[in-house]
Amino acid sequence: MTDTRNKPHYTENVLEQLQQVQRLVGAHTLQAETHPRTIPGAEHHELAELLLQKRHLGELQDLLNRLHPSDIAFILAALPIGQRLLVWNMVKADRDGEILIEVSDPVRESLIASMSFDELRGAAEQLDTDQIADLAPDLPQSVMREVFKSLSIEEREQLRAAMSYPQDSVGALMDFDMLTIRENSTLEAVSRLLRRFDDLPDHTDQLFVVDRDDLFKGTLPLNKLLVNEPEVEVAALMVTDSLTLYPDDKAQQAAQAFERYGLVSAPVLDEDGKLLGRVSVSAVMDFIRAESENEVLNLVGLRKGEDIFASVWKSAKNRWLWLALNLCTAFFASRVIGVFENSIEKFVALAALMPIVAGIAGNSGNQTITTIIRSLALGQINPGNARRLLAKELAISLLNGLVWGGIAGGFAYLLYGSAPLGLVMTGAMLLNLMLGALVGMLIPLTLQKISRDPVIGSSVLLTAITDSGGFFIFLGLATIFLVR
Amino acid sequence: MTDTRNKPHYTENVLEQLQQVQRLVGAHTLQAETHPRTIPGAEHHELAELLLQKRHLGELQDLLNRLHPSDIAFILAALPIGQRLLVWNMVKADRDGEILIEVSDPVRESLIASMSFDELRGAAEQLDTDQIADLAPDLPQSVMREVFKSLSIEEREQLRAAMSYPQDSVGALMDFDMLTIRENSTLEAVSRLLRRFDDLPDHTDQLFVVDRDDLFKGTLPLNKLLVNEPEVEVAALMVTDSLTLYPDDKAQQAAQAFERYGLVSAPVLDEDGKLLGRVSVSAVMDFIRAESENEVLNLVGLRKGEDIFASVWKSAKNRWLWLALNLCTAFFASRVIGVFENSIEKFVALAALMPIVAGIAGNSGNQTITTIIRSLALGQINPGNARRLLAKELAISLLNGLVWGGIAGGFAYLLYGSAPLGLVMTGAMLLNLMLGALVGMLIPLTLQKISRDPVIGSSVLLTAITDSGGFFIFLGLATIFLVR
Repeated sequence: MTDTRNKPHYTENVLEQLQQVQRLVGAHTLQAETHPRTIPGAEHHELAELLLQKRHLGELQDLLNRLHPSDIAFILAALPIGQRLLVWNMVKADRDGEILIEVSDPVRESLIASMSFDELRGAAEQLDTDQIADLAPDLPQSVMREVFKSLSIEEREQLRAAMSYPQDSVGALMDFDMLTIRENSTLEAVSRLLRRFDDLPDHTDQLFVVDRDDLFKGTLPLNKLLVNEPEVEVAALMVTDSLTLYPDDKAQQAAQAFERYGLVSAPVLDEDGKLLGRVSVSAVMDFIRAESENEVLNLVGLRKGEDIFASVWKSAKNRWLWLALNLCTAFFASRVIGVFENSIEKFVALAALMPIVAGIAGNSGNQTITTIIRSLALGQINPGNARRLLAKELAISLLNGLVWGGIAGGFAYLLYGSAPLGLVMTGAMLLNLMLGALVGMLIPLTLQKISRDPVIGSSVLLTAITDSGGFFIFLGLATIFLVR
Repeated sequence: MTDTRNKPHYTENVLEQLQQVQRLVGAHTLQAETHPRTIPGAEHHELAELLLQKRHLGELQDLLNRLHPSDIAFILAALPIGQRLLVWNMVKADRDGEILIEVSDPVRESLIASMSFDELRGAAEQLDTDQIADLAPDLPQSVMREVFKSLSIEEREQLRAAMSYPQDSVGALMDFDMLTIRENSTLEAVSRLLRRFDDLPDHTDQLFVVDRDDLFKGTLPLNKLLVNEPEVEVAALMVTDSLTLYPDDKAQQAAQAFERYGLVSAPVLDEDGKLLGRVSVSAVMDFIRAESENEVLNLVGLRKGEDIFASVWKSAKNRWLWLALNLCTAFFASRVIGVFENSIEKFVALAALMPIVAGIAGNSGNQTITTIIRSLALGQINPGNARRLLAKELAISLLNGLVWGGIAGGFAYLLYGSAPLGLVMTGAMLLNLMLGALVGMLIPLTLQKISRDPVIGSSVLLTAITDSGGFFIFLGLATIFLVR
């Protein structure tokens, strides 16, 4: 457990610390580069250099020792790979584990790649079993085998359990840092029990009441322990209707419960009602942050957060799936235009106007999608009101079509002096905006129905449809009404 | 304070409760609609009807009484306006305040619009001063005046302070539910003090140590209170390097500190070091949620979260700014194409291919923007590494240009049998992808430099540039090399 150690200082402004590190590391590497030792007659200078360098490294070491593991993790992520490894090597070995837990996946990869077998084993062995489980996918199998051997039977069981839950489940958020008491104890006895510890686990806002068989009976909030008289029995005070979670519950659902009820911790039970572990607000906050990052990344087709100093090649590959998809849909839209090449040849204004029709509908459809995805995530949409919402989105797009389609049609008329062209423009905008609303509503609902994440791919699919659809509708109407 | 009341049950699955409410409300309103009382000979049926209706309403009432205010807030948001007001009227008046705090802005507006002066005053008077401050912008001035009169002098001061801080500051997250102790007390004395309360404020994980003048000296974590012997003095145990916040600090920064350090509460001090209040993890979680929602909404140009049952007119207006902007940029792009109408007339394949060039670069540029905005938000970018990142993004776009531009060029060649056309296509893709990377990097950095939120508008500006730029580059190259 990490709780009994002396905690390093918090820092109000981690950016200042980052700049400090950059200055010290920068000075160090700059000196090494600009004053190669082979210049003749530079011995004296070299000595001064070495001393200065040593001072800088000393300062850096002091700074790192003072910093919180989370802050070191932050600083490592903001340094290019060479400087990152320099700093990483200066971090005390007994903090490696905590820091590896805190850094993002790509940064962790780069750090682990630089560590020896023994260093990795040492780092992993400093951690709690739930933390080892988080780290496990990135560790070499040989290291995991050694770590496993070093654990007690109970810990092995915990590790095995923690590793078996899917990433988006409550089980993956769970830790085992909970304190249990019996319901027939007095508060006096509980207080005496607590005084035997050097410290309590972080985020202990309640004690878990279990019976002899570890069956969960309720919780005793520390608040109640503190405001009541020592003679009172736990049974008289314990809360029996507190929120209980199960390892297979969706993490998303647990996170929403933590937010709604402002929880600090919650017990996790197995099917028989035995206490397995607990979820703390800090795990939930990490989960929420990761979720919201993924949502934004998915919207633009990045598969995961990037180490900003990853190689060009790695970063490019992270972005390719989306671009490839996009190229396919763009080709398709291009072929739709190709069908109407005759019309365009006769009436070249069509080529200039068609991107407007496609673009606005894509934009408007994305607004619909986002609104729907939000409401789906919040659980506000169900079969009872879906049709009503569809009607509303269609009405909005009708209104938008009349307003913006009218403006666009007027613009086309003024520019090309053709009233029929203006009408075709307005009609196409109206129809394509309605197509965008329809599709923007149906895509996330369908993905949800077939149990897919409604975020991934929604936007690219929508744009493909509003592009091709827009070109088809506009050029089609134009061919019928203008080009005869 | 809400803490001393008996708390209603938590619910594991709020969606089930929602369906239950929908069923009861739906049955109620359905009966009222399908059996109008004027049908002759329906008196007997009517009586049965009325009884059934009454039973449903009774069930609904029971259900609502059992639910947590946050769950009622959730359910209200998921009901269309008529049903929403029916349920709202059945909620016990003494819970109005808590629920109004929990609902989103647009839902709150709809509820407040249905309430009388006295109801609103009653609701506001149930709340803590920091909560009244949150509600204040939505309350009529006359109500606020009455509420203000009902407060003590200290509370008025708090309310005035809470209302004076900008929305994105620590002051706006702050509450005043903190317990203070003196450093020369023994733990015994502190315990005695606590036992005088019926309950402690939510999220009390530490007590704040102040001197006679309210100057902040440190904190006493409850953990330490619980594990140490009663004779020990507070001074010997108190933590003096805990994170302290100031009301003018950015809320964003405080939220990051809570996440990094896994905090449950933190003290807020004024410039002289006096304790003003505290920030709790639950306020921070609400802030993080709102932030991440805003980010996604801003990306697609929605100004705020929508009440999904808001009128078509209201929703449409929420979406217009963006669509109007988009129409302007689309017109501009259209005029760029207009300049090259001659070339398109001679070589109509250009019209079919040009959207590909524009689209892919827009997509790729959005990936760059998102990566940069993330890194900016995390503070990972500073003048020391910005140029390096620009070089990296350009390198990625060069690589993408060669790969995807090559594929697109090959496609154009196969389709139209013109090698020069294929080369122009590849060249235009390459240049426009690099333009997208350059602009995708510079827009957020510039917005950040002039202290604007780098998210709002980034994406629309980028797409405008990659569209117009793409058409210009592709049609320009084609005019030079193909159309002579």
